[in-house]
Amino acid sequence: MENPDTSNQQKVAAPAAAAEGGGGGEEEEQQVVNPWEVSAKDGGKIDYDKLIDQFGCQRLDQSVIDRVRRLTGRPPHVFLRRGVFFAHRDFNEILDAYEKGQKFYLYTGRGPSSEALHLGHLIPFIYLQDVFRVPLVIQLTDDEKCMWKNLSVEESQRLARENAKDIIACGFDVTKTFIFSDFDYVGGAFYKNMVKVAKCVTLNKVVGIFGFGGEDHIGKISFPPVQAVPSFPSSFPHLFSGKDDIRCLIPCAIDQDPYFRMTRDVAPRLGYHKPSLIESTFFPALQGENGKMSASDPNSAIYVTDSAKVIKNKINKYAFSGGQDSLEKHRKYGANLEVDIPVKYLNFFLEDDDELEHIKTEYAAGRMLTGEVKQRLAEVLTEMVERHRLARANVTDKMVDAFMAVRPLPTMFD
Amino acid sequence: MENPDTSNQQKVAAPAAAAEGGGGGEEEEQQVVNPWEVSAKDGGKIDYDKLIDQFGCQRLDQSVIDRVRRLTGRPPHVFLRRGVFFAHRDFNEILDAYEKGQKFYLYTGRGPSSEALHLGHLIPFIYLQDVFRVPLVIQLTDDEKCMWKNLSVEESQRLARENAKDIIACGFDVTKTFIFSDFDYVGGAFYKNMVKVAKCVTLNKVVGIFGFGGEDHIGKISFPPVQAVPSFPSSFPHLFSGKDDIRCLIPCAIDQDPYFRMTRDVAPRLGYHKPSLIESTFFPALQGENGKMSASDPNSAIYVTDSAKVIKNKINKYAFSGGQDSLEKHRKYGANLEVDIPVKYLNFFLEDDDELEHIKTEYAAGRMLTGEVKQRLAEVLTEMVERHRLARANVTDKMVDAFMAVRPLPTMFD
Repeated sequence: MENPDTSNQQKVAAPAAAAEGGGGGEEEEQQVVNPWEVSAKDGGKIDYDKLIDQFGCQRLDQSVIDRVRRLTGRPPHVFLRRGVFFAHRDFNEILDAYEKGQKFYLYTGRGPSSEALHLGHLIPFIYLQDVFRVPLVIQLTDDEKCMWKNLSVEESQRLARENAKDIIACGFDVTKTFIFSDFDYVGGAFYKNMVKVAKCVTLNKVVGIFGFGGEDHIGKISFPPVQAVPSFPSSFPHLFSGKDDIRCLIPCAIDQDPYFRMTRDVAPRLGYHKPSLIESTFFPALQGENGKMSASDPNSAIYVTDSAKVIKNKINKYAFSGGQDSLEKHRKYGANLEVDIPVKYLNFFLEDDDELEHIKTEYAAGRMLTGEVKQRLAEVLTEMVERHRLARANVTDKMVDAFMAVRPLPTMFD
Repeated sequence: MENPDTSNQQKVAAPAAAAEGGGGGEEEEQQVVNPWEVSAKDGGKIDYDKLIDQFGCQRLDQSVIDRVRRLTGRPPHVFLRRGVFFAHRDFNEILDAYEKGQKFYLYTGRGPSSEALHLGHLIPFIYLQDVFRVPLVIQLTDDEKCMWKNLSVEESQRLARENAKDIIACGFDVTKTFIFSDFDYVGGAFYKNMVKVAKCVTLNKVVGIFGFGGEDHIGKISFPPVQAVPSFPSSFPHLFSGKDDIRCLIPCAIDQDPYFRMTRDVAPRLGYHKPSLIESTFFPALQGENGKMSASDPNSAIYVTDSAKVIKNKINKYAFSGGQDSLEKHRKYGANLEVDIPVKYLNFFLEDDDELEHIKTEYAAGRMLTGEVKQRLAEVLTEMVERHRLARANVTDKMVDAFMAVRPLPTMFD
C-alpha cells in the first residue's frame, strides 16, 4: 500500500476544490466536511459511513471498544460505547503502546471564536477529563480565529482565556495539563517544527485538502502547520524533552481530520510518529441533524451560560421532534428516533444506559410522549450546565495562569 | 493617485507569473528581478532605470544626495554619491523626520545560506556602520534559507551565527544594534504582527508579487510576513515599547523590493507607517554584469575569507576587462568602462574620489592598462578583506550573544 493518507486526500480534494471553482464538473456531488464547512448531500444528514471512506480513516468498531474495556478494566466512556467517537486512525497503535506500558500524550484544541461554549464544544473535553491518566496539551488557536473570523489579536486572546476557563471547569488536572494560546506560545521549537512541516506541504496539496482559493489570504495557507505541530512531542521541550519518541493521540471532531491527514502524511518525512486519532460525529443543532451548530444562531445550540429557563425554552421550542403530529398517531406509530433531537442529545449526555434504553423503547413504541422526553432532557442538561457553571465560577485567573504556564509537568506520567 | 504600490505590483507580476507557467504569452519579455531570480532581458545587463519604472520606486537623484549632505553636514557615503544606492521609497520622509529631530530606526537583513560572505553581502552593512547613529535591527532569515535551500534547522542556525560574526566584524555598536535569528526570535509581538500582515495579503497577491506556483511549498507562501514585520517597531517590544510611532528605513538590494512593496501596501491598514527604503544595485559577478553572483560558483565572487593570493588570482583570471585585445589597440581606443569589472569594483570600494577619477580617466584614454587597474583593485580588496579578517578574529561567541540578546537598548537614540 503506497500511502493511504495521500490517496485519500485526493478523493477529498475534489469537492472542496470544486467549491472554489477549481475542480471539474464531472464528480458526483459529495458531502463536504472540512474545518470550515460541513454540508451534507442535498441538505440531508451527514453520511458518516461514507465519510470514513472519503477520508480513508478506520471505523471505531466493537472490537476496538472491547479492547479498550479489556485494557482499562472498566466500561468504556459513553462517547465510545454509543458511537460518538465513530472513526479513528491508528488508535490500535496507542492501545499497543498502552498495553506495553509505554507512554503517550493527548492533544486536542479549541478555536476561540465565541465568548461562551456550547455543549458540542465540550465533547472532547468531557471525554478526556477522566479517561486516561496521561499528559494532555490543549491548543487554543486564537491566531486561527483572528484570521478567519477577522477578530483583533486582543479580542482573540481574550476569548482564548475565557474559553480556557470553560475547559478548566470540565475538571482537568493541572499537574498533567498544559493549555496554550498560539499567540503566546508560537516560537522556538514549536516554530521550528512549523517550518519543517511547511517545507513538506505544497500549495497544491493544501488547496486539495482545504479548498483554499486565490482570494484567500496567506494567513489561512500558513495556518495548517500551526495545528499540525502539537502532534509532535518535540514542539513542547518543557514537557517532553528527552521523550521525543512518545506517541500522540488526538480526540477531535471529524471535521478536523484534514489537518491531521496532512500531519500524518508529513510526520514520517520528519522522523516523527504519525499521530493517532479518534474522531467524533458532530453534535447536532437543535433544529435537526443536517450539519453543525451555527454560532450566528444562538437558538441552534445550548450554551454553558444558558439558564434553566432558557434551556427548557430552547428545547421545547426548537428541538426537532421525531414524535407524531397528533397524540393518536403518536400512540399508534411511535416516535422516529432517527431524526429525534432530544433522544440524540440524551444519547450524548444521559449516562445511565438502562434509562436511555428505556426511554428509547417507550418513545419508539409511542408510550412515551415528546414532552416527557424533552422534560427529561431539560433536566439532564440543566444539571450538567449548572454543574459547569458552579465549577467555572471557581476558576480564577490564577488557575488559568497555572494551566497556561510554560513549565515542566514532573508528575505527568504518574 | 490610487495606490502606487499596488499598481506596480501588477506590472511586476506578469513576468514572474509567466516564469511559473501562469501567465499569458503576450507580454513583452522583461527583466526578472525578485529575491530568488535576477535575469536581464536577453542575457544583457540589468536596466536599473527600467527597474525603477517596473517597481514604481523613486530615483535617488542628486537633489536627495544634496539634502543628505546638508542635513548631516558631511559628504554622503561613497555608496550614495556613486549611485550604488540608486533608488528609494519615501526616503524624504526619513530625512523630514531627521530634520525635525524625530527618531527612526534602520532595518536590514541577511539570508544565511553560506558559511562565508562575499563582498556583495557586505554592502548594506558597510554602508550602515557609520552613516546614522540610530538603532539598527538585523534580521538573519535562517528560516527562509532552511526552506529555500533545504538546509536543516540546525545548519541554518549555525550559518546564521557565522554570518552574524562577519556582520559584527563590519564594526557595529552593540549599544545600538540588535541582531536576531528568526528561528530564535519569532513569537510574541513579532508573531502577532506576522498574523496581522498575513490577513491582509491574498494568495493571488503573493503569486503576483513573487511568482509562487502550485508546486511551491507553503513555507514559501508563509514567509513574506516574516520579512515584512521588522518594518514595524511594535515587533520589537523590548526595543521600541512606547515608541510605536517611529519610522523605519530599510537599506537593501533592489531584489528585496517585492517584500517591501507588499509591506508598504499593508502597513496603513494596520495603522503602521510604511517603511522607507533606499535600494542598491547588485554587486556584479567577476565575470561581468549580467546578474548577481552565484553561490554555486566560488570564482564568481571575492569572499571575505579569500587570501591575498586567491584575491589576486581571481581578479587576474576572472574579472571581466573592458580593455582592448592588444596593447596597440588599447593605447589607441582605451578601455570600455561600461563593462569593465575592475573599475566597477573600485567604484564600490576605492574611497578616494580623486584617485578613482584619475584611474577612470587614464584607463579610458588607454594610458593605463588592465593589469595596472587589476593590481590596484587587488590591493584595495586585499586590504579590505585583511581588515575584515582581523576584525572577525576578534569577534567572540560572547560578543555574538551580546548582539543577539533580547534586551532593551537604553542609549540607542543617544
